Amino acid sequence: MELYFLGTNAGVPSLQRNVTSVALRLLEERGTIWLFDCGEGTQHQILRSPLKLSKLEYIFVTHMHGDHIFGLPGLLSSRGAQGAATKVTVFGPVGIQSFLQTALTLSQSRVNYPLDIVEHDGGVLLEDGTFKVEAARLEHRVDSYGYRITEKDRPGSLDLDQLQALGLKPGPLYGRLKRGESVELREGEMLHPSQVLLAPKKGRIVTILGDTRPCENVVPLAQDADVLLHEATFMHELADTAAEYFHSTSTQAAEAALQANARQLLLTHFSSRYKDVEHLQPLLEEAKAVFPDTKLAEDFALFPVTRRE
Amino acid sequence: MELYFLGTNAGVPSLQRNVTSVALRLLEERGTIWLFDCGEGTQHQILRSPLKLSKLEYIFVTHMHGDHIFGLPGLLSSRGAQGAATKVTVFGPVGIQSFLQTALTLSQSRVNYPLDIVEHDGGVLLEDGTFKVEAARLEHRVDSYGYRITEKDRPGSLDLDQLQALGLKPGPLYGRLKRGESVELREGEMLHPSQVLLAPKKGRIVTILGDTRPCENVVPLAQDADVLLHEATFMHELADTAAEYFHSTSTQAAEAALQANARQLLLTHFSSRYKDVEHLQPLLEEAKAVFPDTKLAEDFALFPVTRRE
Repeated sequence: MELYFLGTNAGVPSLQRNVTSVALRLLEERGTIWLFDCGEGTQHQILRSPLKLSKLEYIFVTHMHGDHIFGLPGLLSSRGAQGAATKVTVFGPVGIQSFLQTALTLSQSRVNYPLDIVEHDGGVLLEDGTFKVEAARLEHRVDSYGYRITEKDRPGSLDLDQLQALGLKPGPLYGRLKRGESVELREGEMLHPSQVLLAPKKGRIVTILGDTRPCENVVPLAQDADVLLHEATFMHELADTAAEYFHSTSTQAAEAALQANARQLLLTHFSSRYKDVEHLQPLLEEAKAVFPDTKLAEDFALFPVTRRE
Repeated sequence: MELYFLGTNAGVPSLQRNVTSVALRLLEERGTIWLFDCGEGTQHQILRSPLKLSKLEYIFVTHMHGDHIFGLPGLLSSRGAQGAATKVTVFGPVGIQSFLQTALTLSQSRVNYPLDIVEHDGGVLLEDGTFKVEAARLEHRVDSYGYRITEKDRPGSLDLDQLQALGLKPGPLYGRLKRGESVELREGEMLHPSQVLLAPKKGRIVTILGDTRPCENVVPLAQDADVLLHEATFMHELADTAAEYFHSTSTQAAEAALQANARQLLLTHFSSRYKDVEHLQPLLEEAKAVFPDTKLAEDFALFPVTRRE
């Protein structure tokens, strides 16, 4: 599980950073990738990345501002042109359906794979054997949502050393133990799964927020997250500007991470006024002063989402 | 007057070429630029070019396929974000109004300058003291148009050597002669403007076609053009494929240029199968065999539109 950044700039593309999009790569977990937002040029960034559009499973749109959605029609069309056949579901706020239908219909785009567009206003959006995704409303000029992605815990693997010490060779017994059944050993003694299973693998939590100023839903969305991805449009010296435009400062992002007991904070969605990486260092420093485990996202950067020890 | 290419690939962006857009730079002629088509990522290409969005005056859309229009909402929004105040008029086929209004309204984009969207089905679209633009329908899977841009002839400049030989110093007489009035010289002799004006400057003709297979409107649109910009999606060996998808081969583009007595042919809109510039050489060679003054367009290339000698 990795986060791969396709665009980290706010509002307009710059020579240094594209407008917003980030992929959650779940190749090991489910053989797919999920996309969060899709500003114009996201498909161009993907061309220059290791990501494949054919693997796309879900797209989550945080809000309807152009720098978060204008890349959708082109990306969905190009995926069709590449011959991808698997279904894609787009989750987004009210308006996403009309936007996409109008663009794809008027352009007579050939989307030859199943495409579902689901408008939502928060709540549990999907839940299956391995993942759960919930959304909650944030505070922005338009309806904006944060997404909390919870990986389900997985049972521990069999402790192979222990099994061999007990003289048990690989075979059907292994499968029964793994499924949680007790088995009888030769001497009539029972072996319980808990004796030979390693600790369960704790699922990870990734929280990806749309544009927002500090608001009450941020902490529940980010509670105990392994990674919190938070916008940091401005330095805290511009807190008034941030509030006026319904954005956050890097200090405010750090305060949210601290309050939510997140493990790591990734900052993104930087104002064009911070041109290069060196101009972003002060944003990083002020966030680290509040929440030390903070990093800056940048276009084409990959961040593995590690498990809690 | 120059053509500046922002995208020369057909259908989808590639690592080598972006989807279609070309600017007609009229800085000397009217201090503005005009854009023909605007595929996704055109604003990103402009960031890497000498073009300024603030100078944009007209956008002409050839047809509604996504690779020709999906960059419009982002480009128009970003122009607003940059603080541009002058009016922009978009000309395009039926559907362009609904596409742009839906995208700009649902995204609550702030377009703070006057924006006119004019749907047309061919004919004279605009005419003022310096230019005339006409459109005519081509043959494509959807309504597609070609544009003929005619620069009006301008009166010749005063022949300063001749005036000085006649002993006439710069002053109000110069202005009267330039305006076409005859003036009386000291000896009562009349001096007629034709005696001291250089030859009129012949206006240039630029023809920019949308996607099309060979059809009857191409030649009238391109008649005597100084530059004909024609799609050449395929080599002529793929003439059947070209016909099936309503596209042209480079040989067909050259035949059109020859028939129309154009001065120069620029080929663009290349299939992704022709990856790099070297893969495009055979397209160029086969076109040159029919029409020698042919060139390949490429992203970020500038072509001055010279006057007929």
